[in-house]
Amino acid sequence: MKAALLSVGTELLLGEITNTNVVYLSQELNTLGIDVMYHYTVGDNPARLAEMIEMAFMDCDLIITTGGLGPTQDDMTKEIVCQVMGDELVLHEDILESIRQRILSYKKEMTDNNIKQAEIPSRAVVFYNDAGTAPGFALDRTVAAEDGSETKKQYIACMPGPPREMKRMFERSVRPWLEGMSDGVLYYRELRCFGLGESDLETRLLPLIDGQTDPTIATYAKDGECSVRVASKRASREEAVEAVNAMVEQVREYVGDYVYSCDDEDLVQVVSRKLMEQGLTISCAESCTGGMFAAALTSIPGISKCFDRGLVTYSNQAKIDELGVRPGTLEEHGAVSEETALEMAAGVRRVSGSDIGVSVTGIAGPDGGTDEKPVGLAYVGLDFKGQLTCRKIDRRIKDRRRNRQHAMLTMLDLINRSIDTM
Amino acid sequence: MKAALLSVGTELLLGEITNTNVVYLSQELNTLGIDVMYHYTVGDNPARLAEMIEMAFMDCDLIITTGGLGPTQDDMTKEIVCQVMGDELVLHEDILESIRQRILSYKKEMTDNNIKQAEIPSRAVVFYNDAGTAPGFALDRTVAAEDGSETKKQYIACMPGPPREMKRMFERSVRPWLEGMSDGVLYYRELRCFGLGESDLETRLLPLIDGQTDPTIATYAKDGECSVRVASKRASREEAVEAVNAMVEQVREYVGDYVYSCDDEDLVQVVSRKLMEQGLTISCAESCTGGMFAAALTSIPGISKCFDRGLVTYSNQAKIDELGVRPGTLEEHGAVSEETALEMAAGVRRVSGSDIGVSVTGIAGPDGGTDEKPVGLAYVGLDFKGQLTCRKIDRRIKDRRRNRQHAMLTMLDLINRSIDTM
Repeated sequence: MKAALLSVGTELLLGEITNTNVVYLSQELNTLGIDVMYHYTVGDNPARLAEMIEMAFMDCDLIITTGGLGPTQDDMTKEIVCQVMGDELVLHEDILESIRQRILSYKKEMTDNNIKQAEIPSRAVVFYNDAGTAPGFALDRTVAAEDGSETKKQYIACMPGPPREMKRMFERSVRPWLEGMSDGVLYYRELRCFGLGESDLETRLLPLIDGQTDPTIATYAKDGECSVRVASKRASREEAVEAVNAMVEQVREYVGDYVYSCDDEDLVQVVSRKLMEQGLTISCAESCTGGMFAAALTSIPGISKCFDRGLVTYSNQAKIDELGVRPGTLEEHGAVSEETALEMAAGVRRVSGSDIGVSVTGIAGPDGGTDEKPVGLAYVGLDFKGQLTCRKIDRRIKDRRRNRQHAMLTMLDLINRSIDTM
Repeated sequence: MKAALLSVGTELLLGEITNTNVVYLSQELNTLGIDVMYHYTVGDNPARLAEMIEMAFMDCDLIITTGGLGPTQDDMTKEIVCQVMGDELVLHEDILESIRQRILSYKKEMTDNNIKQAEIPSRAVVFYNDAGTAPGFALDRTVAAEDGSETKKQYIACMPGPPREMKRMFERSVRPWLEGMSDGVLYYRELRCFGLGESDLETRLLPLIDGQTDPTIATYAKDGECSVRVASKRASREEAVEAVNAMVEQVREYVGDYVYSCDDEDLVQVVSRKLMEQGLTISCAESCTGGMFAAALTSIPGISKCFDRGLVTYSNQAKIDELGVRPGTLEEHGAVSEETALEMAAGVRRVSGSDIGVSVTGIAGPDGGTDEKPVGLAYVGLDFKGQLTCRKIDRRIKDRRRNRQHAMLTMLDLINRSIDTM
């Protein structure tokens, strides 16, 4: 099946917001085996919207729209879709009631505009919205096939524009509706990796990727991590699950050393979950990451049970004062050294009394490097209940942001491996 | 002038990358007074690309493409544009030479594919690429106007897809080319604000916005901050500058209290620049932001001259150990209180010996609030060379990420105002 994504909203054409909906929907549709042929964005203009829908149907069987379902005059997606698909809007009493309840919970008054939101095309499949007031829906129409000898169906699904509402509606209603239209059941798992690049990952998996039909294997990269998605579409869910799990085992044989999650959790989520499950306490001492590790860990609600303190010891004096790093170590080996990293980790564990002390010291760049200690060099230290480990990072990248991000992920990776083995 | 943006690349349709190019270009074109009517995205497919160009020209006079200018077989934007615009590719010796130099600097070998990148349509205006190998270009064609009685010109400008290359090319070559096509010269300034929402900002500026023709005034919002763009298009640059500066003064009369930059610097940039210029040293004590302030400040290269240390004192014990907060203060007023915030700020200034100590303590959420101290409550403390200040944040928002971001920005805002007044 071929699909087009149609985003409606003047704010997109003004560059006021980034279109993350098409990123999410493209990934999801590709996973479902649906080819995304186009992305279109149009403003709140009825004639253009109708024209775009007809054009997309010229070579796609499915259009998914986002936006233009709100309560104001500008929002006209429903009216235009009815016009193109040959249907008319009718008031749904149960939707009206759920909108009324939602608006009451906001302590606001119902307006005539809100009543408009309860109108849905008469033939539509309704997608309820449990994160906002605008419901979504799907409609189909039957048209003559190209050769004129037979007919085919064309589908359009309309969802609200706010990403949070759209994603919930897609997960709960639109994905099952799409799966119901197709012959099989799709199942997939996402394996998250750290410690190798996407091209390296793909190369290692080539024996599995080459000639793949089902399950399919695809690699992705994002913010210094990468992932493998294994998907299968079979007659029953049981068959799809079995096929995916068998392939996941094969993938682990090739790159298992790098896989830290088979359930699409990121490294911060994995580490914080394990800390909380095992009741481990942690503190950190950061230099080049400047607080990024502490900020990432404390982004997780409830982490205050485990995270005690983070010391961002940027200056040498701060390393001496706060962590008890010996001046002699700094003089002899320098601030960016294995010795300093280990004293930092042991120091923050000692002052905090935490189970785990983790540290990092490095040269983030873009300047400040020497031949001996180039930009990109960093050391991550770990004191896990008295057991000391250090990992050296040696990458010749001048990019401050990427070096800091990589150092932070390395801290998480080292903690994760230590929790698993100790 | 009406324009369409056309993005070329299968990776966009697979959802592997987010299309930030259209956000940037939409904002820039709107500032230039060019209306963006559509965004289109197509894959690396010649027939669809040609079809899209012809369709966009049905009601636009300008198309800007990004992507598909690379050296591989997939990259066919140039060929298709030539076909549609009626031109042919010719080899440019000077472009070939600059590609050769760039590849040498990468310590790589020149390939036949790279030679293809030096081919440009014969009638094109060339846009040199100083951040990559693929040059961009612009072409025009003359077509009959709708009523058949006269002819009009249509323009297409093609740029590489990587955002860094595209932005540099736009700034250095494409914007001047667009300005050259229009009658006037455009000049604008961007005023960044903190402390009020976008709708509040717009409401306050309504007397200026209503009936605006030139200069134009537009408001934007992003990540807890908002901004005002004042733009003017006049016969000469001098006239445009004068008109913009006069309007900027008027805008400042209405919202001057909230404006922290008239030159599009963000709060971290403004604060770190002032710290470096004035040789002020700073340390921070963070609770609810968990290191975000330190991480933001240390994202600026060279800040190690000013930033000494950051203490992320998440637990009460850490506040006592590291900052000397009195246990009695925590018992009597609680960790989230003006008293604790001020002791934290004074404490971190004392232990670090910095000129400035800044602190924050709050309830980030989503849980952990009480009737008396709800989620969203936070206190920012400042010790500026012994002068103590505290600001209370009281917003009833449950969103952990937004509360933390707002608290961090409030710390920066308080420091910025103090540097200006002390």
